[in-house]
Amino acid sequence: MPNSSNFDPQRHTLSHLLVAAVRRIYPQAKFGCSFTTSTGVGCDVDLGDNRLAGSDIPRLESEMRQLLPDGGGGSGRSLSYDPITIDEAIALSESQEQSYWVEVLQLAKSDPTQLTTLESDWLGIYPSDPVDHSKISKVSFDGQTVNFCGHTDLTSVDGQTAFKVDKLSGVYWRGDADRPQIQRIELLAFASQKLLDQHLDDKAASRLQDHRQIARDQELFMGSELVGAGLPLWLPNGATIRRQLENFVIEEELAAGYQHVITPDITQIDLYKKSGHYDLYRDSMYSPIDIDGKKFMLRPMSCPHHFQIYNRRPHSYRELPVRLAEIAKLYRYEQSGELMGLTRLRSFTLADAHIICRPDQARDEINGALDLIEKLTATFGLVKEQHYFYRLSLRGDGDSTKYFDDPEAWRRAEDNLRQALEARGEKFVEVGDEAAFYGPKIDIQMTNANGKEETAFTVQYDFLMPQRFELSYITADNTSAEAVVIHRSSFGCIERVLGFLLEHYGGKLPLWLSPRQLRLVLVGDREGPGQLSDLIAERARRLKIGVEVDSSDLSLGKKIRKAQEDLVACLLVIGDKEAESKTVTPQWRSDLVDSEKPPASQPMPIDQLLDILEDNISQRCQKIESSQ
Amino acid sequence: MPNSSNFDPQRHTLSHLLVAAVRRIYPQAKFGCSFTTSTGVGCDVDLGDNRLAGSDIPRLESEMRQLLPDGGGGSGRSLSYDPITIDEAIALSESQEQSYWVEVLQLAKSDPTQLTTLESDWLGIYPSDPVDHSKISKVSFDGQTVNFCGHTDLTSVDGQTAFKVDKLSGVYWRGDADRPQIQRIELLAFASQKLLDQHLDDKAASRLQDHRQIARDQELFMGSELVGAGLPLWLPNGATIRRQLENFVIEEELAAGYQHVITPDITQIDLYKKSGHYDLYRDSMYSPIDIDGKKFMLRPMSCPHHFQIYNRRPHSYRELPVRLAEIAKLYRYEQSGELMGLTRLRSFTLADAHIICRPDQARDEINGALDLIEKLTATFGLVKEQHYFYRLSLRGDGDSTKYFDDPEAWRRAEDNLRQALEARGEKFVEVGDEAAFYGPKIDIQMTNANGKEETAFTVQYDFLMPQRFELSYITADNTSAEAVVIHRSSFGCIERVLGFLLEHYGGKLPLWLSPRQLRLVLVGDREGPGQLSDLIAERARRLKIGVEVDSSDLSLGKKIRKAQEDLVACLLVIGDKEAESKTVTPQWRSDLVDSEKPPASQPMPIDQLLDILEDNISQRCQKIESSQ
Repeated sequence: MPNSSNFDPQRHTLSHLLVAAVRRIYPQAKFGCSFTTSTGVGCDVDLGDNRLAGSDIPRLESEMRQLLPDGGGGSGRSLSYDPITIDEAIALSESQEQSYWVEVLQLAKSDPTQLTTLESDWLGIYPSDPVDHSKISKVSFDGQTVNFCGHTDLTSVDGQTAFKVDKLSGVYWRGDADRPQIQRIELLAFASQKLLDQHLDDKAASRLQDHRQIARDQELFMGSELVGAGLPLWLPNGATIRRQLENFVIEEELAAGYQHVITPDITQIDLYKKSGHYDLYRDSMYSPIDIDGKKFMLRPMSCPHHFQIYNRRPHSYRELPVRLAEIAKLYRYEQSGELMGLTRLRSFTLADAHIICRPDQARDEINGALDLIEKLTATFGLVKEQHYFYRLSLRGDGDSTKYFDDPEAWRRAEDNLRQALEARGEKFVEVGDEAAFYGPKIDIQMTNANGKEETAFTVQYDFLMPQRFELSYITADNTSAEAVVIHRSSFGCIERVLGFLLEHYGGKLPLWLSPRQLRLVLVGDREGPGQLSDLIAERARRLKIGVEVDSSDLSLGKKIRKAQEDLVACLLVIGDKEAESKTVTPQWRSDLVDSEKPPASQPMPIDQLLDILEDNISQRCQKIESSQ
Repeated sequence: MPNSSNFDPQRHTLSHLLVAAVRRIYPQAKFGCSFTTSTGVGCDVDLGDNRLAGSDIPRLESEMRQLLPDGGGGSGRSLSYDPITIDEAIALSESQEQSYWVEVLQLAKSDPTQLTTLESDWLGIYPSDPVDHSKISKVSFDGQTVNFCGHTDLTSVDGQTAFKVDKLSGVYWRGDADRPQIQRIELLAFASQKLLDQHLDDKAASRLQDHRQIARDQELFMGSELVGAGLPLWLPNGATIRRQLENFVIEEELAAGYQHVITPDITQIDLYKKSGHYDLYRDSMYSPIDIDGKKFMLRPMSCPHHFQIYNRRPHSYRELPVRLAEIAKLYRYEQSGELMGLTRLRSFTLADAHIICRPDQARDEINGALDLIEKLTATFGLVKEQHYFYRLSLRGDGDSTKYFDDPEAWRRAEDNLRQALEARGEKFVEVGDEAAFYGPKIDIQMTNANGKEETAFTVQYDFLMPQRFELSYITADNTSAEAVVIHRSSFGCIERVLGFLLEHYGGKLPLWLSPRQLRLVLVGDREGPGQLSDLIAERARRLKIGVEVDSSDLSLGKKIRKAQEDLVACLLVIGDKEAESKTVTPQWRSDLVDSEKPPASQPMPIDQLLDILEDNISQRCQKIESSQ
């Protein structure tokens, strides 16, 4: 979009060179306005029966380079300008058959309020100001008028200037669909090649701010109309990332004292009638499956399954807390229109857990759950108060039928959560009418790439399920007492978090999470290098490093480029030299930081490299310049 | 059960000692026959109003030991015997009021065909033989007749003999419910304590031949009536084993060039209509789930999903074979009555894969699939021809409507499979009418603990799906050609294989697969040992060793016993000595073999122990005295 507010004298000059260059190719061209943007320049042009096509771009760019000063590879000829009146400009335009110019200049003279913003910008005539003819400049190149403009400050471009045609499109003259369609030429233009490259990188990166686009580019998952909406099929690279994320969660949870279980995805409706979920969440459930006259549901939550496990035998007070975790596949109804990438699915995978504990253990368990969440998020460099914040979601004074009616239990539960947060010294917001039916919760709120706040993880206090399922324990006095349940998710919905992380990293995942950690490129397939690469691959596999061997017959250059396109984290070229010295020179993915790999690409013995990779992967190194 | 066919002179002698010992305790005892079995000895006895109870066993055993020769702790008195006629035996029995003996001897004299097997054995008189009175022996102990028998070879028991009362039960005299109920005493008896212990171990093991019993004992999985039949809930230990098995399969498949994917468990019915599965396998599918007017199925197979993935973009001939693998949850209908443990479930997990290749690659791919199966089974010490064999399952000449009609394609497919087996030099059986609808297959047949032959894994050649799904590739001439599909399972249904392995190992899994690999037992909870145990636990976790810390306040003895009951593979007691020396003395689970651990329980530095465990786990050491 044209944007004159970011005016830059060099870009302004360049816009005149653009018009001059087009005129050199198409002397009959009729021009509309030219303009500068925050990233470059552009002009509108009518070539009659001709159209500028992608294939014309190299010539156009070449013509422009010819017009640059000497240092930029051009002939060194520069522009001149003279102040003229609008009437003089009209006469000049008529003599050159520039009918679009004539039209705009006539309008500027008779009724400047009719000018579009682009036209006002072009002439420097603003409807609210008194018309000041002296502001119009006639800009000439080699004596030929190339354009008018509202500025006299015509700083010449210098040899460093870098530009690139960005976009060719069609626009209606004066934005009116009844007027002719003419072409708009837009260029990126920066004061140096470095700045232009930087911009191109940023732009590629911003394209990577949507996990769906990243997933397409990297072949992570796909949809299938035959399979159905909201049910992604994970391709090999995506499945690898998922597996690594799930292993990460399981390992950390086991280390934090959770026990992992696996329970069925379909279950008799009876279980959800007993839990009360069927009455409350029926609308989120899919239609039942009939098996031998019994109704089975795709499960929308795993709590009642975990309670069945707890209740398989009595528990002593000494055995509590029992922390049952599961990477649980869940099914919740979403309307077709609401399905979105990995964010809204019809089936998703929750890093779920239920802690069954004594009331006196509840606060410690809440605290432990928050510790774990902070530990997991820190692995991805996510910082509290910056990337996420705590919200205490309470019942409030709203519609009392939405919440299980037991004021005293609510008070105790809310106090437990609040005090846990306070004891940690957390900042948090309290929000009413955001609790679950069966209890209040601490929500961990995150802002996604679109700036929308979402609940990523939850720690919830439940006093209802222990009643419904008679979750009890044997006290020290040998009597039976009711337990408390804490529902919590350490890492939320794996798919959604993966989508978030893809956007967070702009598609460039940390090495440990990357689906392509090590690639070996053989120079030829001669004996020595082949043996060495087999050996490295075998050792790498044993160390659980994701390794591939490129033994295709592409050229070395193409293999290396392919590895770069594939975002391979570490590339080893294996030839005779390496086979002889048993030493390799790793080429690291350019975005990897020093916390993830050695600072430079120095040669090293194979075992040292494998140790570096293994250490990174097993320690799940953060992809930030760590200041720990 | 009495079993004279395994007669053993020492056991026979011991049966006389048993009668003598009972007589010492109950001088009025009336005896029936005594006997030997393949594992010991026994006798039937009528004690009138008395009954031998469990609490009498120590005294009975002690009396028997008194009668053993000197070296066995007894008085050294030995038995004597004289040949006598049946008439003499009857007179003797009458004088001792041994009415049961009199009855049997009368029968042996008048109508030996009326003797039971036990009675014939006892007297050595067989109805089919001519009666030979000289065969009867009067066996005396200290001049007192203790029994008759049909054998003159009365080898004395020696001091090594070990015995143990195994069972007291009631039997009807002569097996007739109208006759008096008398007691049967059965002993285990072996030539040495070592042999007796071995037998007791074997017996405990045989109880572990049913994976359902093992699973109950070890808390591996449970059923729930509310959840539904055939849908096990995996408890922490069982979930750990499953995870390890699945990781094992995934790692080996990745190393073998497969790509793992993850596809949805529910899918629109359209996909199965397109594949043709809906028409053919509708009866194995569950009823559809209605979502916004569309019908979704719990998937019974994953082939069409993988074909969707293959078809996401064109493939060049150079990219083939594409090997797509998945740990796929599948749902197939089973009647309630057919559900059984982990063997027949309503939802199960298949180590599934589909290889899409050029026809000229098919044989190599079949070969590779068989190689992988042999590698995976070898990890569990399963030996071809001993534990499993190959079956080539063909269409045969049966009902042609059961098979897709394309004789030429069948011939090619069958040839490919047969030639692959022949080229490997495999023995195999060919069986007709065992193919799938869409092609012939190689089945890997195993025999389960109940002796029933089952198909464990399958490699199948499919020429139909490539037509249905237009699975093609671009040839070197830039034309399109139809691919071939090989369906294969490297490791079958994970649940069923796990059930098989539990029975195969009698519940004692190899260390790498064990849910309890390392347990640290703290002696007290003093500072040094506590720190050391935290350090070991942390390091072990980093090395992915399954570690627990027992910091309960049980006594050391109880902690050690609990670890044994829990089948902990490696137990470390951590006290001050260990904290100071940083050296531990691992106690290994008694059934672990030298291929899994060092031969003795010697002290070693902590890192050395962790290395041993890590090596075992990452190499998945076989639990056999390996001769590789």
